[in-house]
Amino acid sequence: MSKIVGVVLSGSGVYDGSEIQEAVFALLALDEAEVEVRCFAPEKLQMHVVDHLAGQPTDGSRNVLVESARIARGRIAPLSEARAETLDALIFPGGFGVAKNLCDFAVRGPECTVDPEVAQLVTTLYALGKPLGFCCIAPALAAAVFRDMGVAGVRLTIGDEDLGAAAALRAMGAEHVPCAVDATVTDERHNVFSTPAYMYSGPRVRDVHRGIADLVQRVLART
Amino acid sequence: MSKIVGVVLSGSGVYDGSEIQEAVFALLALDEAEVEVRCFAPEKLQMHVVDHLAGQPTDGSRNVLVESARIARGRIAPLSEARAETLDALIFPGGFGVAKNLCDFAVRGPECTVDPEVAQLVTTLYALGKPLGFCCIAPALAAAVFRDMGVAGVRLTIGDEDLGAAAALRAMGAEHVPCAVDATVTDERHNVFSTPAYMYSGPRVRDVHRGIADLVQRVLART
Repeated sequence: MSKIVGVVLSGSGVYDGSEIQEAVFALLALDEAEVEVRCFAPEKLQMHVVDHLAGQPTDGSRNVLVESARIARGRIAPLSEARAETLDALIFPGGFGVAKNLCDFAVRGPECTVDPEVAQLVTTLYALGKPLGFCCIAPALAAAVFRDMGVAGVRLTIGDEDLGAAAALRAMGAEHVPCAVDATVTDERHNVFSTPAYMYSGPRVRDVHRGIADLVQRVLART
Repeated sequence: MSKIVGVVLSGSGVYDGSEIQEAVFALLALDEAEVEVRCFAPEKLQMHVVDHLAGQPTDGSRNVLVESARIARGRIAPLSEARAETLDALIFPGGFGVAKNLCDFAVRGPECTVDPEVAQLVTTLYALGKPLGFCCIAPALAAAVFRDMGVAGVRLTIGDEDLGAAAALRAMGAEHVPCAVDATVTDERHNVFSTPAYMYSGPRVRDVHRGIADLVQRVLART
């Protein structure tokens, strides 16, 4: 039987949802590894809608699950239906949606709160000893969940040490480890893996792909 | 100097815009080839908005250029600014947006009309002898442009011979050539390349990636 890996999406578009390219590279790497993928997203409204041409918030409201379905071609379920026991691993692509819709890190920084469904799923997978992968800004979500579990010292990367988010990760009790865009920071003790992806400004598409493929392989090696 | 390749997007999401995964795989393959990519989309409203979870049209209106910017991370220009002389090749990812927003094939079949900006760009690139690549349903757009130019017999694929679109392509004067999802149909005489991608129901993600990477390499070999 093939392994089953969950991918948690947070909308569709880097500024108010999942970073599309990162999400697609995760789906590709999982398929190349013969893994069965289950996409999930919370069924709730996005924090807001951003015009990705203007780079500014715009009118209207969109549902996180409905927009995430664009990336998953409709094959996606509400996050409330995710069962940690049936998943061998869980991957979070990045994008501001992670920091706006899965938690409120974009607004509250290290004081952020985590969506309860997300927190429960990550906490349960961790308790079951299953590996977790976080791309781009998603390690901020990881740091918040581990902060709430009272687990300090988880090794995570959001890329460069001098990015503001690195200090925020430390403020939540995590250890920040600098990492190149095409590489992965591994925390074997906590079974947590992270790659910076588009946390860097203007990386090559192929390097983002390489970093996420590397992360997925390391996650799968622990299943 | 690196080559410059245009990618024409038609929104963001398979049912009312560009097929997201196909678009990302085209961007990846072009970046891996050290090519400079310029994304374009028409600045107009989508034909409609589809709820990708329900698979049904829904309320609201969205702009093709603004939604396409989600895939391109904001680095995209109006199609009216595309200059055939500055491009070495042009690639069309698929998705219903091609058949709804770049032409009206989804509504009118072989009687479809083509968006004037799209028609002009493709026609001019063809006249300049530059290669053109079409994924998924985009060969229907190609067939319509060549029909309007009075050029018959262009070899194109939309996958299986028994798909209705194959007959529509022939009705527009094209030759339909069956093709596997991970391969490309080449028409060296007209410098036109096509791959079926998600025209097949339920292909593996990796095979769609492979087909588009193959198409991009064949297009670039002709620049």
